[in-house]
This record gives sequence, C-alpha cells and structure tokens, in this order.
Amino acid sequence: MMNDDRGEPPENKVEDYIRDRSDAQMYMRPRIPVAILGATGSVGQRLIQLLHKHPWFDLVAITASDKSAGKKYRDAATWMLATPIPEEAAKLTLLPTDAELPCKIVFSALTSSIAGPIETQFAERGCVVISCASAHRKSPNVPMIIPEVNMDQLEMVKAQGFPNGGMIVTKPNCNVIGLCLALRPLQLEFGLEAVDVVTMQSISGAGFPGVPSLSIIDNIIPSLPEEEEKVENETVKVLGCSFAISASCTRVPVTEGHLELVSVKLKQKATIDQVKRAFREFVPPVQEMQLPSSPREVIHYFEELDYPQPKLHRDFEKGMCVAIGGLRQCPLFDYKCTVLSHNTIRGAAGGAILTAELLVKKGFVFW
Amino acid sequence: MMNDDRGEPPENKVEDYIRDRSDAQMYMRPRIPVAILGATGSVGQRLIQLLHKHPWFDLVAITASDKSAGKKYRDAATWMLATPIPEEAAKLTLLPTDAELPCKIVFSALTSSIAGPIETQFAERGCVVISCASAHRKSPNVPMIIPEVNMDQLEMVKAQGFPNGGMIVTKPNCNVIGLCLALRPLQLEFGLEAVDVVTMQSISGAGFPGVPSLSIIDNIIPSLPEEEEKVENETVKVLGCSFAISASCTRVPVTEGHLELVSVKLKQKATIDQVKRAFREFVPPVQEMQLPSSPREVIHYFEELDYPQPKLHRDFEKGMCVAIGGLRQCPLFDYKCTVLSHNTIRGAAGGAILTAELLVKKGFVFW
Amino acid sequence: MMNDDRGEPPENKVEDYIRDRSDAQMYMRPRIPVAILGATGSVGQRLIQLLHKHPWFDLVAITASDKSAGKKYRDAATWMLATPIPEEAAKLTLLPTDAELPCKIVFSALTSSIAGPIETQFAERGCVVISCASAHRKSPNVPMIIPEVNMDQLEMVKAQGFPNGGMIVTKPNCNVIGLCLALRPLQLEFGLEAVDVVTMQSISGAGFPGVPSLSIIDNIIPSLPEEEEKVENETVKVLGCSFAISASCTRVPVTEGHLELVSVKLKQKATIDQVKRAFREFVPPVQEMQLPSSPREVIHYFEELDYPQPKLHRDFEKGMCVAIGGLRQCPLFDYKCTVLSHNTIRGAAGGAILTAELLVKKGFVFW
Amino acid sequence: MMNDDRGEPPENKVEDYIRDRSDAQMYMRPRIPVAILGATGSVGQRLIQLLHKHPWFDLVAITASDKSAGKKYRDAATWMLATPIPEEAAKLTLLPTDAELPCKIVFSALTSSIAGPIETQFAERGCVVISCASAHRKSPNVPMIIPEVNMDQLEMVKAQGFPNGGMIVTKPNCNVIGLCLALRPLQLEFGLEAVDVVTMQSISGAGFPGVPSLSIIDNIIPSLPEEEEKVENETVKVLGCSFAISASCTRVPVTEGHLELVSVKLKQKATIDQVKRAFREFVPPVQEMQLPSSPREVIHYFEELDYPQPKLHRDFEKGMCVAIGGLRQCPLFDYKCTVLSHNTIRGAAGGAILTAELLVKKGFVFW
Repeated sequence: MMNDDRGEPPENKVEDYIRDRSDAQMYMRPRIPVAILGATGSVGQRLIQLLHKHPWFDLVAITASDKSAGKKYRDAATWMLATPIPEEAAKLTLLPTDAELPCKIVFSALTSSIAGPIETQFAERGCVVISCASAHRKSPNVPMIIPEVNMDQLEMVKAQGFPNGGMIVTKPNCNVIGLCLALRPLQLEFGLEAVDVVTMQSISGAGFPGVPSLSIIDNIIPSLPEEEEKVENETVKVLGCSFAISASCTRVPVTEGHLELVSVKLKQKATIDQVKRAFREFVPPVQEMQLPSSPREVIHYFEELDYPQPKLHRDFEKGMCVAIGGLRQCPLFDYKCTVLSHNTIRGAAGGAILTAELLVKKGFVFW
Repeated sequence: MMNDDRGEPPENKVEDYIRDRSDAQMYMRPRIPVAILGATGSVGQRLIQLLHKHPWFDLVAITASDKSAGKKYRDAATWMLATPIPEEAAKLTLLPTDAELPCKIVFSALTSSIAGPIETQFAERGCVVISCASAHRKSPNVPMIIPEVNMDQLEMVKAQGFPNGGMIVTKPNCNVIGLCLALRPLQLEFGLEAVDVVTMQSISGAGFPGVPSLSIIDNIIPSLPEEEEKVENETVKVLGCSFAISASCTRVPVTEGHLELVSVKLKQKATIDQVKRAFREFVPPVQEMQLPSSPREVIHYFEELDYPQPKLHRDFEKGMCVAIGGLRQCPLFDYKCTVLSHNTIRGAAGGAILTAELLVKKGFVFW
Repeated sequence: MMNDDRGEPPENKVEDYIRDRSDAQMYMRPRIPVAILGATGSVGQRLIQLLHKHPWFDLVAITASDKSAGKKYRDAATWMLATPIPEEAAKLTLLPTDAELPCKIVFSALTSSIAGPIETQFAERGCVVISCASAHRKSPNVPMIIPEVNMDQLEMVKAQGFPNGGMIVTKPNCNVIGLCLALRPLQLEFGLEAVDVVTMQSISGAGFPGVPSLSIIDNIIPSLPEEEEKVENETVKVLGCSFAISASCTRVPVTEGHLELVSVKLKQKATIDQVKRAFREFVPPVQEMQLPSSPREVIHYFEELDYPQPKLHRDFEKGMCVAIGGLRQCPLFDYKCTVLSHNTIRGAAGGAILTAELLVKKGFVFW
Repeated sequence: MMNDDRGEPPENKVEDYIRDRSDAQMYMRPRIPVAILGATGSVGQRLIQLLHKHPWFDLVAITASDKSAGKKYRDAATWMLATPIPEEAAKLTLLPTDAELPCKIVFSALTSSIAGPIETQFAERGCVVISCASAHRKSPNVPMIIPEVNMDQLEMVKAQGFPNGGMIVTKPNCNVIGLCLALRPLQLEFGLEAVDVVTMQSISGAGFPGVPSLSIIDNIIPSLPEEEEKVENETVKVLGCSFAISASCTRVPVTEGHLELVSVKLKQKATIDQVKRAFREFVPPVQEMQLPSSPREVIHYFEELDYPQPKLHRDFEKGMCVAIGGLRQCPLFDYKCTVLSHNTIRGAAGGAILTAELLVKKGFVFW
C-alpha cells in the first residue's frame, strides 16, 4: 500500500539502495528538513536541544498552540533546560499546529489529548510522523518502536495506508523504554515468565508546569493508575511475547531519570553470572548501523548494588543508554535489579530522534 | 527464672492485679522514672520529644558518648525537631553511657554497633531495657514487639534469665513495623502466602548526620542490602508464621515517613471488599488497654489510589497509626497496596514508648 | 459614617462595653458564624484548619468558583495540609462566590485578581470582610492590619462608608508581616532610618498549583518584582513612618516559612544588647487582650547565629510568632538579623483570624 | 629571589619568549605532568573531571590521606559527579600526601585545616602549588588569583622566596570569585563605594559528606559567619581597592551554583544602560591569551529580571562564566543585580586550572 502510494520501488530494493550508500555520502548531503509539533513543551524543548547540530536533520519548522503561534520561539517558550536555546531555533516563528510544513519528517511532542487527529492529518499529507504522544499507540498498525528492541515491528507501517509515504510511528511510555531495554537481553537468552516493576519516576515526566512543587517536595505520589496500565500493556506489546507483568508507578522528587526496580522470573534457569553476561554482552542489530544518536553501550552494567542512581548516571552516554545495577537473587522471582533511563532523552526526545534515524537508514524516508 | 530472681508472684497473678487497678489510680500515682541511653541522636531526640508531659513516665536521666557526657543536653544536642527542646530535658546533664541510673525503665537509642553490651549491662542491673537498636534482635528470647501485632511474644522474656526483673525488649526495623501492622489483619483473616515489598525510606531513618545532602537531593539510593535482609527476616519472625517474602529497600529525598509498596498473595481467596474490611475493622487486643500512646485507629484506610503520601499523612494520629491506601488487584500476586508509617515515631521512639506502656500495663514493670 | 449606618453608640462607648465583658462571658456565648470565600485554595485550606474548634468562630459557609460550587468540600478540594480535613468542613457544600451568607464575618481567601468587586459586594451587604488578598490594600481607608503593630489603623474603617457595619480589613503581604513584627520594636525604641531586606520565600506562598516543581527543585528564582514593590510600599504604610527601604525577593525550595535577611540603620545609636533587649521585651498592647490566636511570645529571639531556620522554627507558637536570630553588627547598616515567619499561618490565615478576633474584642463586630 | 633561584632570565624576557611561541607549538609539545593533592574529595573529583583530556596538562599523580593511600582511585573515591570517572585517573594509585611527585604543577584540593604545611612543603621542593584551600590566603605574598580580575597580583609570588621556582598561588573563596567577576567591570568603569551581598550557596560548596540532608532539605541555613568574613576581606583584597562591604551568607538546598544578590553604590554616577554596557562589554586582558579553560564570554548578561537561576544557568560555558541578570535600580544603593557562578567549577577546580594555564602562558612554569 504505502509503496504504491509513493510510487516507489518495493521495500527490499530500497534497503539495497541504502546499504550501498556510504556513510560519507550521507554526511555530505544537505540535511533532511524536519519539524516539531508542540515545540514549546518539555519534550519539544528536548527535541530542539537534541536536534541542534544534528548531522542528518535540519530543524526548519516548529508549531505551537494558537496562544503562541506567530511568536518567536525565544519569546514563547519557558525554556527549562540547562543549555541555552539554540540560536537557530530561538529565532524561528511558531506556526499554527495545522500549518503545511515543508518537511518529510515531523516529530510530534503534542499533548496526548490533542495529538491524535493532528498526527493523522500530517500522515495523510505524506509526512513521516514520529510521535512522543500516546494517542496512536493503540491504533492498528502503529508500532511503538525502540530501535534496539523491536525494529522489525516497523514493517507494520506498510499496512497503515497513508498516501505518499505518510506514516505514524510512536515510542512507548518512557518507563517502558527503560524496562524493555533491560528485559530484552533476558528475553532473548532465557525467556520471560513474570515481571514485577516498581517505577520511581522523575517530575520531568509529567511535562511543564506538570507536578506542583507543593505536591512533590518532601513527598512521594504513589499509584499512578494510567501509568501502570501503560507499562503493563505496552511492555508486552513491544517485546512481542507473552508473560505476566505487574507495574506499580510512583512519582518522586527527582528532576530527571526514571528509576525502576525490576523483579523477573525467567523461563529457563540461569545463574547470576549468566544474567550479568546477558546484560553486558547485549549488542542489538541496530548498533551495526552506527546511527548518530545510538549510545556506544546500550546497557551500562554496574556491579555496585546501590547503582545506578538518577543524579549520578542519567546523563551517561548523553542520556541514551540504560543503566542497570543492583543485580541480586530474589526470594520470590529469580532475580532483582535496578534500571535507570533518562526519561526525557532516552524515554522521549532522544528515542524519537533515534527512531527517525533508523527510518532514514532503513529507507522509509528517502534522503 | 525471671520471676524467681525478682521474688515476685507468678505472672498470671500479676496480670490479675493489673486488671484490678483502675486507670484513675494509674494517673494519680507519681510517674515512673525513666532514662534514655544515647539521648543526643535522632531517635534520642524523638524519645525526649514524646516523653514530654507523658502521663506515666518521668524522664530523669539521659546518657551520651564520652564526648558529650557532662554537658547540659541543651548544649550537647544538635536538636533537629520542629518543636522546642522540652525545658525539663534541656537542663539535664548528660551522664556517661555506663552510669548507674535511678530508673527501672531504660530506653535505648544507642547506635546498633555499640548497643549490645551496654543494653545487656543494664538488664543485668535489673532494668527493663526497651531498645530501638538492632543489636539484640537476634539474641535468644529477645522479642521484637509491636504491641498491636505480637504482644504474646513478650512471654519469651521470662527465659532471658536476668536478675531483679531485668529484661531486654526490642522493636523491629522501622520498615517492619509499618509492614507488619498492614499485614496483620490479612494474616488473621486470610493467611499469607507471599509478600513482596518495596520500601521508599526517608532520610531520618539513617540518623544524624546520616545521609549527606549531596547523596540524596535530586536522587534515589536503591538497594540497601542490610535493610532488605532485616525486613525479610524480622517480618516473618514478628508475624510468627511462614510465608515467602522479598524486600527491596531504597532511600528517597523525603524527610520523614517510610512508604512501602506491598504486594501480597493470600492463603485463602478474598474479594477486594473483604480485604478493605479487614483493614478497616482491625482492632487488635491492645486497643482495649487504652495505652496513652495508642492511636485511636491503628490503621487509617484511604480509598484514594494515590494515598497515603508521606508529606500529607505521616503525622496522622500523632505519627502512631499506619496509613494504607491504593488497594488494587495485582496481576502477579492477589493485591497491591501502599503503606505509610512515621519512621522515627511509630517506627522508633513512639513504638518503644508504646511498648513500655504495654509492659507496665501487663505488670512486667511494677508501678 | 459607619456608626451612623449601624445605629450604634460611638466607638469609645463600644470599647467600654467590651471592656466590661468578662472573658468567661465570651466563652459561654454561642460562637459567631463565619464564612470563607475561596475556601478550596491554599489559604482557604489553612483558614479551615485554623478555624477548626475555634473558641469564638463557627464556620458555617464556604464558597468557591463556579467549577466547584455545589460540591461537598471533601470532593472539591485538593487538600494539601498534614492534618485531616475537619469533618465539619468536609461535609459543607460549596456555595457560589456571590451567595448571600448568614454571617457577619467573612474571611476572603480569593485570588487577588478577582477579589476586589466580590469583597466590596460583601461589605455593601454589611459584612466585615477580612481579606488575605491584595486587591483592596491600596483602596482608601482600607487598613492592612497586623494586630501587634498597627491596630490603631483600624480606626480608618469608619470612613469606608459601607452600610450596616460593613467594612473591609486586609492584611499586608506575607513578607511584610514578618518584617514589620521584627522592625516594630526597633522603630519604637530607636527609630528606623533605612532597611534592606532579602526574602527567601517558600513555595506555599504562591498558592496551589503555584510553583511548578520543575522550576524550583534544585533551584532558586530570584527577583520577584511584584513582591519587591509590595514589601517596599506596604512596610512603610503599616509602620506608619518614613524610612528608606529596599527589598529583594526570591523563591526557594522550602515548603513553608519565609526567611528574611534584614539589615537596618537606626535613627538613634544602640548597642547590640539594647537591640536584643528590644526584641526580647517586645510586648505589644494587643497581648493584654489575650486573643485566642495570639502567640505567647510575639518574637521568639535566638542567640544562635544560624537560627532561625524554616524547617526547625516555622511551627513555633503554632506558627504565630516571628522568630529572630543571627543578630550581628553590619559594616554598612547598623545591624543585621534573620527573621522567620510562617507564611500561610502568621502571614495569611492565622493573621486574618487574629485580626478578626481583634475586631470582635474591640467591638467592631457585636457578639 | 625566585628568578635567581631558578637561574632564569628576568620576567619581562620570559614574557617575550612566551609571546613568540605560537599556539600550534604549545599544542604539539608533550603535555605538562600535574598532580592533585587530596584527590578523593569533592574539589579533587572536579579537578580530575576537568583535567580529563586537557590539552596542556597530563594528570600523573594523585594523593590522599593515609586511609586511602595505596588504593586505586576507583576503589577509594566516593565519586559524586555525573560523568564516569576518567579511566586514566580511575586506575591511578593514591600516594601519601607527602610523597615526592614527578610534577612541576601541583593542584591542592586539601582540606583547609591541613593544607598549610603540606602546600608549603611542596613549594619548598620547587613546585608551583595552585591551591583551592584557604590556608595560605592570608600568607604574605600569596596572591588570590582570578585571571580575569587580578592577574597582575601574580607578581607578588616573586617575593615568596621558595627555591627552584616553587610558589604558592591560591584562589579566593568561591563566593568571592563570582562577586569579583561581577564587580570588576563596575570598578573599572565607575569605581565602587559600597557593596552589599547576600549569598545563597549550594551544598556542594561544603564538600562531601558536608551538609547532612536532614539539615538542608526543606530548609535554609542562614548566617555562615566564617564565610561572611572571607567574602568581606577577600573581595577587597582581590579587587585591590577600598570600599565598604557587607556579606550575609546562607546555605540553600541547591546542588551546584552559588547565587548572590548584589547591591552596589558606585563612585561615579551611571545610568542603567551604562551599567549594562559595562557588564556586556567586559573583555579582560586574559581573554586575549585564549587559555583552554577561558569561557568565551566572561560575563553572560541576562535582560530577564528572574535570571540567572542555578538549575538553568550554572553550566553555561562549561561552568566557567559568571551569569548576571535582574539588574534594577535600588532605593538604597545605586543598583541591584543577581550573580551566579558554578562554585565547584568556576569557584574551585576550573578556576584553579585556568590559573595554572595563566601561569604557563606567562612563563611562571616552563614548558
């Protein structure tokens, strides 16, 4: 369907073409123009930060709600990041959310409650929409992609039926990204039977203004029911296999980085050294592509029982790896460990950009 | 043994005697002189705060390490509580740790690493030592008492063999107190098969100076292995029955109040309404004694999924109740819920004072 | 004017009448019905908390915006305080903001942007409006009252011209209350020439949801220009004398309690001991009235240089005193000291209730 | 003296020599071996982090107290920074503090209480000691250097009299560095008459373990008397001119970045635009040397009244610039503004390395 609409060669030929192109060629070409929908929010800000000086992508258009459209980005955004607003973004004028954009690739950082129809509209126009919102995660044929885990699920976009190569690709919930990256090597080596996860989520996961300071300083907010449901459902869907899972989600007074306490029962018995080795030697196929945003190590494994910790390790590998430590035997399941991922980088903006790079490399977007 | 040494009537007669005394009589008598070992630390401070104007107990002596002995309490303590130092304590002179004290009841807030021999010494002298330290928790015949849960285990002190009515009674780890108070009604109604608990412990649990601010602001410290072992072992010992248990303990940037995420598999099937009722209707026998430090409600049950929260609910019932909320079905176990207890009150100083009251009421200390 | 409208005896006779009434009589009478406008917000919550079991006032009506009107308070408010919602308030139904209320005394906890006309409307109906909002602070003849500082300024309400004893009384900005309580003894003893104040304001001062956690955890927000202007203008107006003043206002990650660093140049030379004595011996005339909400000590003076501190001292005297410490000579001004006041109690709800008590005691409200 | 001992040409010729060397030459030479005294503490960790891949300096030796000496750095340090321990440092063995080190340049991150004699010992051996400790700040002929402010004061080392080119150079208190960088352009353009500064200092300024979390979470510690004295004395000494100054120092729950509220009275009248221009156009002579650690902008000036903020701006220019904002007229002084500097980078380790670079460039160390 998709290929027909785009009048393009069948997909396997596209991949041949891609494989023939040297990286040198890719870096000499003019960069691919991209846009951000919902650029003023916290995920939008991260996208702008991470697209600054991106070797493949050139940010040319940004949109915002009617309240901000027409303003310069510099004047409209309450910039919350610790690096200055990149000058090339600061001077862009915010367009209305439904503007025609001169871009094939569109990153969506829209609020989930409004993202659905807008993202569909852009796909209808032939755009490749890479969405950080949850709106389309349950739509048919819309994959939730973590490049190191399930890039094969990208195939399902061919059944979406949008014209001119339009498509919608999402990323799962930010907790799910860290969890699946940690579970993937165990799934491959030993199989998964049951997973219990407790999340301790940072405040940046709730966007801006998000969590009121009066609600979270010197406090914990337990039981985020919507998050729990997402973690349980999306983890199974992303990993593409069947196992029992229970998630308990909490919000803690940490600025960035979701910590997850994971207990896992394996299908096949494994020694603790085998589990360690599975974590340490995990090199998923996407690593061979050497995508610009790929971490060198997908999993950074710590021997320390009290590692990883959000403040110390969230920025490892520019926030793109998952850190695992505290591996120990569990009296109820087989093993317990601690998993950390940077929720607004790996779990949102950085993950979306990595997925866009994958789409380019695999020929879903022509360059 | 104990009774012989004390030259006292057998225990059942003591209890008869106690039952005959009216509360009015108890309140008119001069208060019982008590002492605190290790009064300058954070548990010592809470004991001083909670013993202020206590109807039964009169704080007459306090001890500290050699560095502080000889100083007025006011000058030696780095007072960290939000109420002023009670005047009657501020003016007391700190005695050396091994001083002879004119008290039958001695509260120990000593550091666990040094508490063992000192507590034994006081028991040898005929004192009733109520200890917040972990030193003697594994000693033979030393019970870890939570009055609402296992007051029957007090009987074992008779086998300790100290002269003149001396004895050592401990309280379990602060996490264990909240956890056992929550599990007790489930144990009684349905039986326990397996328990998984994740603790999110406040910084006050580590004493003073305790956790460096650089280590915990904007951070979480996962996997506190010693705590995990204590929670697993002591919970089973206190509840006095056999079930599987896994504990994962973490430190979070919260000043007071340990939050615990508890998943439980019951021996006997129960509906969620039956579980709620078990929590709501839990009135343990000790409540009939109307001890001065008993909370009106032992369990404060919240329907709200995102309750309890440390900042909002740790001070309910003067910090002596356990708050439970977030009850929901669990895909792996039967039910999950959230449990909160005030770690330095219910989990330490307040629990110790309540135990002392129980000992008086049950005639282990004559008044 | 006011007296005429109310058909009441001239004011000095009113006071005679009050003086004749014994306290015993006051406590035996039925309590005075009062209402709260804007009861769901953070100041409204504090009013509800502090009016619980108030000896003189009986909370009978509460209002909220249209969104919440018609709901039970329990269901409409996001209760943020560490004590349970008082049952008598929890079950009240929220009325629309313009409802006729069966009360002479109306506490206004309305947002300042909407408070003006609503408060005027209630005064027109003959209510005594005691406002925590800033709307009427600059209105002619509307006093900003701190009972220990400027109760004489209450007289100006007689020129407001509302019928049936209606009037509007405000309290100044929360920083101004702590500052004026600290400056008042110096003003009386030595005179003020210049005052420099830096505020370090807690997040609760911005209401709920107020300050986003992403904006303030691990951060400080300096230069709150509107606050600075209020502090400079209102301090002079409340103290009723002329001196130079500069205020620099900041927001810090503290939940409750505004800390102020005050440098002061006195009109008349004074030794540091004289300054100390002025703080320590400050007993303003209102203390003789023994109002229910008056602190025993208006100023709690600390010798310690590093005291007061928000976490340790904000709750002294139930949050109604001002704590002063860190007194030292200043190379530029004469003296520097540190001032702490509880911003939502002394600086808002508690101060308003104390003012209401003063109005009753002085006969502005008949009981 | 110094020159004689070193048998070197007089200083102006040294500078000629330096000026003749091209930067290209400097980068092709083998790097200069350097050491760190007290490498495990928080300043020591920053030095290790910032010396990683330094173009001129090669870290070859590290020392620690007896407790850690002999261990690998990886095993001895409680690493608190958010980047991994550089591998080349992790594998170094910690030497005893008095070891002979094969380095001309020695960075001292020793605790001030023990730094004095050790630093002197190294200078006696002919080392150039660049100290972050306060021990020698008051020693005769020991300059406190901020390269952008007072590099001329380096000359005084010639009178120190150590053999073989040994010398001690210090940096002032971390607050003083930010303050002097902000005051310097005003001093040069308008002259200084009086300065009032309130510091809001981050916890990292107190080292590790430093401030207990129980003391600072949800709290402020006002009046740090030793800090106040240092700020008052050192600021005057560094700027080398006479003016009145008062400092009030506080500790706040912020992890990194000291914020200072500065009020200043100028000798010569200036409009606010002139003051802005002075900040914006400040390019001190050292900038021409293009030292590796120099920020591009020494002062980053913000128009925003509520900027700078620690969380947002402390990492600008890799933590080496000072950020200024909130400039406004002051009713008591002439102008007020807000100043932010990264206390462990600009205010400690980064400042020390910049000073070392200056010493090399100016020929105080031969390369």
